[in-house]
Amino acid sequence: MITWNNLDTLASYKELFNLDKVNLKEAMSGENGAERVKNYSIPMAEGLSYNFAAKQVDDKILEALKKLAEEAQLTEKFEALYNGEVINTGEKRRVLHHLTRGQLGNAVEADGTDKRAFYTEQQRKIAEFAGKVHAGEITNGAGEKFTTVVQIGIGGSDLGPRAMYLALENWAKKNGLFKMEAKFISNVDPDDAAAVLASIDVAHSVFILVSKSGTTLETLTNESFVKDALVNAGLNPSKHMVAVTSETSPLAKSDDYLAAFFMDDYIGGRYSSTSAVGGAVLSLAFGPEVFAQFLDGAAAADKTAVNKDVWQNPAMLDALIGVYERNVLGYPSTAVLPYSQALSRFPAHLQQLDMESNGKSVNRFGEPVEYVTGPLIFGEPGTNGQHSFYQLLHQGTDIVPLQFIGFRKNQMDTDVVIQGSTSQQKLCANVAAQIMAFACGKEDENRNKNFEGGRPSSIIIGGQLTPGAMGALLAHFENKVMFQGFLWNLNSFDQEGVQLGKVLAKRVLAHETEGALKVFSDFLDI
Amino acid sequence: MITWNNLDTLASYKELFNLDKVNLKEAMSGENGAERVKNYSIPMAEGLSYNFAAKQVDDKILEALKKLAEEAQLTEKFEALYNGEVINTGEKRRVLHHLTRGQLGNAVEADGTDKRAFYTEQQRKIAEFAGKVHAGEITNGAGEKFTTVVQIGIGGSDLGPRAMYLALENWAKKNGLFKMEAKFISNVDPDDAAAVLASIDVAHSVFILVSKSGTTLETLTNESFVKDALVNAGLNPSKHMVAVTSETSPLAKSDDYLAAFFMDDYIGGRYSSTSAVGGAVLSLAFGPEVFAQFLDGAAAADKTAVNKDVWQNPAMLDALIGVYERNVLGYPSTAVLPYSQALSRFPAHLQQLDMESNGKSVNRFGEPVEYVTGPLIFGEPGTNGQHSFYQLLHQGTDIVPLQFIGFRKNQMDTDVVIQGSTSQQKLCANVAAQIMAFACGKEDENRNKNFEGGRPSSIIIGGQLTPGAMGALLAHFENKVMFQGFLWNLNSFDQEGVQLGKVLAKRVLAHETEGALKVFSDFLDI
Repeated sequence: MITWNNLDTLASYKELFNLDKVNLKEAMSGENGAERVKNYSIPMAEGLSYNFAAKQVDDKILEALKKLAEEAQLTEKFEALYNGEVINTGEKRRVLHHLTRGQLGNAVEADGTDKRAFYTEQQRKIAEFAGKVHAGEITNGAGEKFTTVVQIGIGGSDLGPRAMYLALENWAKKNGLFKMEAKFISNVDPDDAAAVLASIDVAHSVFILVSKSGTTLETLTNESFVKDALVNAGLNPSKHMVAVTSETSPLAKSDDYLAAFFMDDYIGGRYSSTSAVGGAVLSLAFGPEVFAQFLDGAAAADKTAVNKDVWQNPAMLDALIGVYERNVLGYPSTAVLPYSQALSRFPAHLQQLDMESNGKSVNRFGEPVEYVTGPLIFGEPGTNGQHSFYQLLHQGTDIVPLQFIGFRKNQMDTDVVIQGSTSQQKLCANVAAQIMAFACGKEDENRNKNFEGGRPSSIIIGGQLTPGAMGALLAHFENKVMFQGFLWNLNSFDQEGVQLGKVLAKRVLAHETEGALKVFSDFLDI
Repeated sequence: MITWNNLDTLASYKELFNLDKVNLKEAMSGENGAERVKNYSIPMAEGLSYNFAAKQVDDKILEALKKLAEEAQLTEKFEALYNGEVINTGEKRRVLHHLTRGQLGNAVEADGTDKRAFYTEQQRKIAEFAGKVHAGEITNGAGEKFTTVVQIGIGGSDLGPRAMYLALENWAKKNGLFKMEAKFISNVDPDDAAAVLASIDVAHSVFILVSKSGTTLETLTNESFVKDALVNAGLNPSKHMVAVTSETSPLAKSDDYLAAFFMDDYIGGRYSSTSAVGGAVLSLAFGPEVFAQFLDGAAAADKTAVNKDVWQNPAMLDALIGVYERNVLGYPSTAVLPYSQALSRFPAHLQQLDMESNGKSVNRFGEPVEYVTGPLIFGEPGTNGQHSFYQLLHQGTDIVPLQFIGFRKNQMDTDVVIQGSTSQQKLCANVAAQIMAFACGKEDENRNKNFEGGRPSSIIIGGQLTPGAMGALLAHFENKVMFQGFLWNLNSFDQEGVQLGKVLAKRVLAHETEGALKVFSDFLDI
C-alpha cells in the first residue's frame, strides 16, 4: 500500500537533522580519504560508476538515507509508475517513458493498445524510414538523397535530442556510422530558423516537425518559416517534412508529411529523448542500430533503478544525497560539469529535466509544501569552466554542490603529447584534481590564496562516451529526478508554471492589454 | 580621498534594512504599474534603455541606494581606476580595459608608454593585417586566400570573443560585411580540437593563438594539436598562425607566427573582448570597421558609467539593485535571459565575467567579509528557456531575480506571419508577458495552477542587435560587475581561486600524489 506523504512528515527525514555533519576536508584527507574513494563507489549500467566519496555523507548518514528511501517507498512508487499507474495526477496521465526502452514490470495497456508494443512499433517504423532514406529509396522530389536532417521543436523536443546528437556526433564519425548531419531550429526568434536555413542545402534536407499537441506556437511558426523557404526554392514541402506527434494531433494524418511517427500523452517532453522525439532525428543521423544501443544503455540504467538496496541503485542514492544537500545542508543549486566537450549541451538538457520536473511549490495534491524543492541546475564542460565560473565555486561565499562526469578515453583517436602527457590525460588529471581541491582546499597565510575546501562533489566515471553510456547517463538523471520528486512528494511530470506566460503573450499579440503590460508592449513596438 | 570600506560598515547600507520591502505584485498592478514602467526606465548608450520597473524597489529604496553609491564612492573609485591607479591590488596591476575603447580621464603611462596609444596601435596593426588577409595580400603558402579564422584560447580568450562573434555573425551576413567564418578551440579535451579541425578546410585557415602569459596549458596543447594537423596536411604552421599575447611572453617575438598582437597585464582575460583578444578574430571575421563600431558602442556605455547621478548611470543603478537583491533580499542567483538567438552564448560570457570577478570571500585587503558577495549567474535565450527551466522560476520554492534583454527588430529580414503576427512580434510579446507573469502572478483556486508572482526582473530594450549595441551591452555588464565589486570591497580583477586545481593537476600528471587523489587518478587510468 503506497502512501504519498510530504517529506517533512517522515521520521527518517527528521532524524537526518540530528546526525553530525561531515567535515569533508577531514574525511577526504590521508588514508581515510583513500579508503572513502574506494568504498563510496557503486557500479552503474554500461561500465559507468558513481563515486560519492567527496559528498558530505558518512556511514551513519547513508544509513539514515536508506531508511528515508524505505519510508518514502521509493521502490514501490517507481514500481507503480512503470506498471502504469496514473502518477502524473495533475494531468491525470500515466508516466511511461521507461517503456520506450524496455519493460520493467507488467504489460501496460492504455488507449486500447499495449504501450510497449506501441513504442517499439514506432521505433520499427522509424528504423524502416531511416533505412530507406539512407539507401536512397526515400528521396527529395528530384530523386536525390537527403544529406541533412533538421529537427524543428522546442524545450523537450529540442534540448534532449540536440544534447544526444552532439554527444554522439564525433563517436559516430570516428566509427564510420555517421549518416546525416543534424541541425536544430527551436527559438521563435526568426533569426534562428533563418540562420539554420542559410547553413544547409535545403533541397537535400529532411525536416522533422516535433510537437506532441501539434499546437506549440514556436514550432508551428518555424514550420511555416521552413515551408516558405522550401517553396521559395521551388520545392514541395510535403516531400521534405516528417511529423513526430501524438496520434490525436492535427498533424497526425496530414498529407503534408512524408511520414508521421507517434508519441503520446504518457511521455513528457523532457523525458522524450528515447521516444520518437529523439528516435527520428538520431536514427536518421546515426542509423537505427546506434539508436538501439542508446536505448539499451537507458534500459540497463532503468534496471539498476529498480533495486531496493540503495547500494545497488545509483540513481536512488544520487537522489537521496541531493535531497540531503538541498533540505538538510541548505544548498540551493547544483552544477553539472562534464569533462567531455561532446557533453557540451548535456547540462542544458539536465537543467530542463530537473528544474521543470521539480521546480514546484505544491505537492501532488496541490497543497503548498513547507520545504524547499528542486535546486537550480547549471553547468558547462570542463576544463572550460575552470577558466570561468570555478573561481566562485572555489572561493565564493556560497557552497554549490558539484556533479562531475569523466571518461577514461576520448571519442576520437587523435591526441597530442605535451609535457609528457596526452590531452586526454590532462583532462582526466584536471577533474581528479578539482574534486580534491574542492573537498580539501589548501590553507595559505595570504587569505586571498586560501581555499576553505568543504565543497562537496560526486563523479560519474565511464570508459568512453558511447551510445550505450549516453543512454545510461540520460536514464540515470531521469530516474534521479523522479526519485527526488517522490521524496518531495511532487508531481514531477506536469509543468503548469509555463502556462501563464503563454496566456499573457497571446493577449499582447491580440492588443488586449492594459496597465504595465500595455506600456511594455508599446516600448517593444508590438 | 578614497577609502575602501566593507559594505557592512556603511551607514547607508544598514539603512536599507530598515526600509519597507516592495510588494511587487501590488506595485506592478493597474495604473500604478503602468506609471512605474514609464518612470523606472533610463537611457543607455546606443539607443538601449534599462527598465527596472519590475524590480523590488521604490523611490525610498532608490534614494537609499543613491546614498549608498555616494558613501561607497563608486564614481571616485571608477575615476581612480580609469586614471590608472593600481586597483587590482592582489596582482599589483592597473585595470585598463576601458582604454581599449576610449579615454575617460587622464593619460595613463605604464611600462614607458602611453597605454591608450599602445592599445590603439594594436588595433591599427590588426586592422592592417585583417585588411591584407581580406585583400589576398597575406595568404597561405600556396598564395591562396584564407577563408576561415580559428581562435585557440580558453576562458576569457574564448567565451567573450565567441559570444561576440555569434552575436554579430548574422548581422554581418545580412549587411554584406561578413568576411571569414570563425571557429573556436578551447577545451583540453582532444575531441574539441579534432572536431573543429574536421569541420574546416585547414589549408585555408588562419589560427589565432591567444594566451596572455604564453603558458596556458590548454592553449599550448591545442596549438600543438593544430600544428600537427597542419604538418600532416603538408603545410607550414608558421604560415597559418598568429599570436595574441603580452609583449613579455615567449610567444611575442617568435618566428612561428605570421604576426603578433599585444595585450598586457592590465587587461584581465574576462575583460579582454575589446582588446586584441577580441580584436583579431572579430576584425578578421567582420572587418576592422565593424570592430570599431563595436568599440564605439562600448566607449559610449563607459561614458554613461562616469555619471555621478545614478539616474544617468544605468550600470551603477543595475549594480546597486543587484546588491540590494543579493544582500538585503537574500537572493543567491540571477538568470540572464536574452530574447535573441544571436545572444545564445552571452549568458556564458556573463557567467565568467560576474562569477570570476566577484565570487570571492575576502576583501581587497585579504580580510574575510561577513556578507555574501557575487551571485550565481546562468541563462539561456528566450523563448527556449520558457519551455525549459522557467517552470522553477515561476513556481519553484526559491526566488531567482531575472535580467531580460530584448530588441524591437531582429537581425535578418526574413520573417513569417502566423495567426496575425510575425515571429519577431511573438518574441517581443513573450518577453513582455513574462515580466508581468513573474511580477504579478495569477491566483487560481487550483494551487497547482497558482502563480505567486513577486518575482523581480529588469529588461534592457534595444532597437536591434548591431555592433554598437553589442559593445554597449558588453560594457554595461563589465561596469556593473566593477561597481558591485566596489560595493562589496572586493578585488574584482584577480582570480586566485583557479590556481589550486592547476597545481594539483600537475601533481597528478607527474604521478606525485597519494591518498584520495591517487585513487581517483587510478580510477581514471591516468
